[in-house]
Amino acid sequence: MIDSAPLRCLTPSGWTPTQLRVGTDGRIQRIDPARAETARFALPGIPNTHSHAFQRAMAGLAERQENPEDSFWTWRELMYRFAGRLDPDSLRDVATQLYAEMLEAGYTHVCEFHYLHHAPDGAPYADRAAMSRALIEAAAHAGIRMTLLPVLYMTGGFDERPLEPRQRRFGHALDDYLTLLAQLRRMENDRLRVGVALHSLRAVPAGAMPALLEALAGHDFPIHIHIAEQLAEVEQCLATRGARPVRWLLDHAPVDARWTLVHATHLDAGEISGIAASGACVSICPTTEGNLGDGLFPLRAFLDAGGRFSIGSDSHVSVSPVEELRWLEYGQRLISHRRNLASEPGTPGTGEALLRHAWTGGAQGAGLPLGCLQEGAFADLIVLDPDAPALAGARDGDVLERFVFAGNRPLVAETWIGGQRVVAEGRHRERETIARRYARTLRCLLAG
Amino acid sequence: MIDSAPLRCLTPSGWTPTQLRVGTDGRIQRIDPARAETARFALPGIPNTHSHAFQRAMAGLAERQENPEDSFWTWRELMYRFAGRLDPDSLRDVATQLYAEMLEAGYTHVCEFHYLHHAPDGAPYADRAAMSRALIEAAAHAGIRMTLLPVLYMTGGFDERPLEPRQRRFGHALDDYLTLLAQLRRMENDRLRVGVALHSLRAVPAGAMPALLEALAGHDFPIHIHIAEQLAEVEQCLATRGARPVRWLLDHAPVDARWTLVHATHLDAGEISGIAASGACVSICPTTEGNLGDGLFPLRAFLDAGGRFSIGSDSHVSVSPVEELRWLEYGQRLISHRRNLASEPGTPGTGEALLRHAWTGGAQGAGLPLGCLQEGAFADLIVLDPDAPALAGARDGDVLERFVFAGNRPLVAETWIGGQRVVAEGRHRERETIARRYARTLRCLLAG
Repeated sequence: MIDSAPLRCLTPSGWTPTQLRVGTDGRIQRIDPARAETARFALPGIPNTHSHAFQRAMAGLAERQENPEDSFWTWRELMYRFAGRLDPDSLRDVATQLYAEMLEAGYTHVCEFHYLHHAPDGAPYADRAAMSRALIEAAAHAGIRMTLLPVLYMTGGFDERPLEPRQRRFGHALDDYLTLLAQLRRMENDRLRVGVALHSLRAVPAGAMPALLEALAGHDFPIHIHIAEQLAEVEQCLATRGARPVRWLLDHAPVDARWTLVHATHLDAGEISGIAASGACVSICPTTEGNLGDGLFPLRAFLDAGGRFSIGSDSHVSVSPVEELRWLEYGQRLISHRRNLASEPGTPGTGEALLRHAWTGGAQGAGLPLGCLQEGAFADLIVLDPDAPALAGARDGDVLERFVFAGNRPLVAETWIGGQRVVAEGRHRERETIARRYARTLRCLLAG
Repeated sequence: MIDSAPLRCLTPSGWTPTQLRVGTDGRIQRIDPARAETARFALPGIPNTHSHAFQRAMAGLAERQENPEDSFWTWRELMYRFAGRLDPDSLRDVATQLYAEMLEAGYTHVCEFHYLHHAPDGAPYADRAAMSRALIEAAAHAGIRMTLLPVLYMTGGFDERPLEPRQRRFGHALDDYLTLLAQLRRMENDRLRVGVALHSLRAVPAGAMPALLEALAGHDFPIHIHIAEQLAEVEQCLATRGARPVRWLLDHAPVDARWTLVHATHLDAGEISGIAASGACVSICPTTEGNLGDGLFPLRAFLDAGGRFSIGSDSHVSVSPVEELRWLEYGQRLISHRRNLASEPGTPGTGEALLRHAWTGGAQGAGLPLGCLQEGAFADLIVLDPDAPALAGARDGDVLERFVFAGNRPLVAETWIGGQRVVAEGRHRERETIARRYARTLRCLLAG
């Protein structure tokens, strides 16, 4: 059992000076009152509900205008070319670096939306889970808790065209996919949950949905899907299926609290209330949605309908929960010319309101009891830097506001996973060795 | 004379391995070819053309919804209350911390838009320049180059109402203002330029403009003004002066390259082309404009008209040129559903395009030859961290893209001002002592 030094912990009953007793299973056994006051504020680690780990390695390499109609779709061409260079070893090195960065930034869990299954030519690896294993090893090495979401990707568009050659490494027939899923489920452990992802409606034919849903029935897998990220996708879905994507999904799948809709940027009023009523979570990825020019999520209307959301760093152009949360809120302010859209009068500050969604929505998306420091919960937490100027004189009522809104310097001093300190003084315990290996791998990828 | 270690410098002829010879005057005397290759990329430091230093201390303290109509105007109430607590000593401590943070983030110059002139009760200090001196001392201590812009603030609205009690510390009669300006001009030196600022059209009556402009005629002062930040300001200007603010200014003042229009968020097509044709610079402050819900600047149309811009961190909710530049671009992408709006096919990447504006617009706004590493220029530069994972394998063609777009970790290893290294290994040379003093001062301010 580990006894923590005194922390000012955000527990279900508010900020309390505590000493955490953590069992050998990595869970909080007891929360005792601390004997001394402390300015070391500790809060639940933040779940990251959408990640394509390999894309971290191309951050900053797609910021050149290829043609005047540059958009998500031209970016996707670059992403495909880059994806074509990765193998299990390089994927593991990239993901380990990314996950170490996530831990330093305050993420303690990642939902990895994994579609890079096969060799670049589309042939399965001898071990069909080779790429999944690379991600699992990366998470274990970095020390982050993970929900692995192997992705079902069957077709190249709403017209059910076959996959293009460069998409073949993403693809599975449904049976092969279910075999992979079963194989991965046998690898589950305390730090690894396995769920399911449908790449998108354009990648899973309408005719394949019933068999898939039948296979998932009765299980409590988290189920994730990219949806309504792009206007072209909305138009194609309307044209081929006679409904907007979210409407179609709500009408054809038993969408409930197991489901996470990733992006869901383009929604009409009925879709907003439909998602909220279903209990599903929306994974909003503001820095990637900004980078890709997706559009702004209708946050206030969704919250008014009772909607739940979490955040994801997706393509990892930024790896920072506070940049995601800050710019989710700022995007709303910029179009409404108002302030503090994610909170309401009389409630806690906007930073705290945003974080509470990231915690509860994140736990739901991950399919794990995350985001709450209570007895029996994983001891996954972050300790803010008591010496950071941006937090000088911080109090219970403003510390989360300052964490989210007082700037872009890293304010996380420590990150604990299962009671183990994987980040101390703002640095991952293996920062240098992981970064060296990443740099070597990235140079090879870029030379390729 | 200082000889630099080899640097891969961005000079007017491109990226070159160089050794800089810096004279005792802090200027580059010679740029020699380096004898060895190096991965230490060096680029001009970035000018910050809009700062209200004292607001750094309230970052994160105004993120709570006061009422459902929360906006810029409710934020301004909080800002006034906070401003009422500052005196020269506390202002100096806050500004020193801020300027050290700017240097660590890659800003090497600041335009300080300074309106906190008098004691909290509105009475002038015995030394009428006491608050200005606090800022000058802060800049000198931190080591940042500065253009100090004392602000003329005369009335409380377009209706020319007198200042409210809490605004009185901002105010001057025109003659007193010109006296202060003359006093400050006598303090100019190699690191300190003095310019002029009009707070806004609502704070400088139409009738006072001719006398002011006459006093400024024939001088080459930089002249800054807040303009068209808020829709209410546009409406009030239309109602009282019969024109939108930028239109009115262009019609009533000799706006030219001396002028910097701060924000200029709300523009019609004629105002966009009018600013561009005038040669004035627009100081865009994306993180503050996001925080305050101002709106999105019409960047692409302004660039198409040949407009010039720079960036400012304004209220300092973030202190990072790359967050400003990244989100300036992302804001455009989010509303247009396209990518790479600040660049054009065949030109350098979007990060480089944005930085080039920040350098040339920043030099113009500062009224100083900044933003270009050539013989005779100040040796004000930043060296990127060669060990940063986000820059692994960086090349001439992508290093600036990765600096701007590959994440929110600090990538600046060194910052030089006049050939002196004020930041090394990412840390200001007096980081700890400055931060300790700031923390003590902030605690007093918050207790007040």
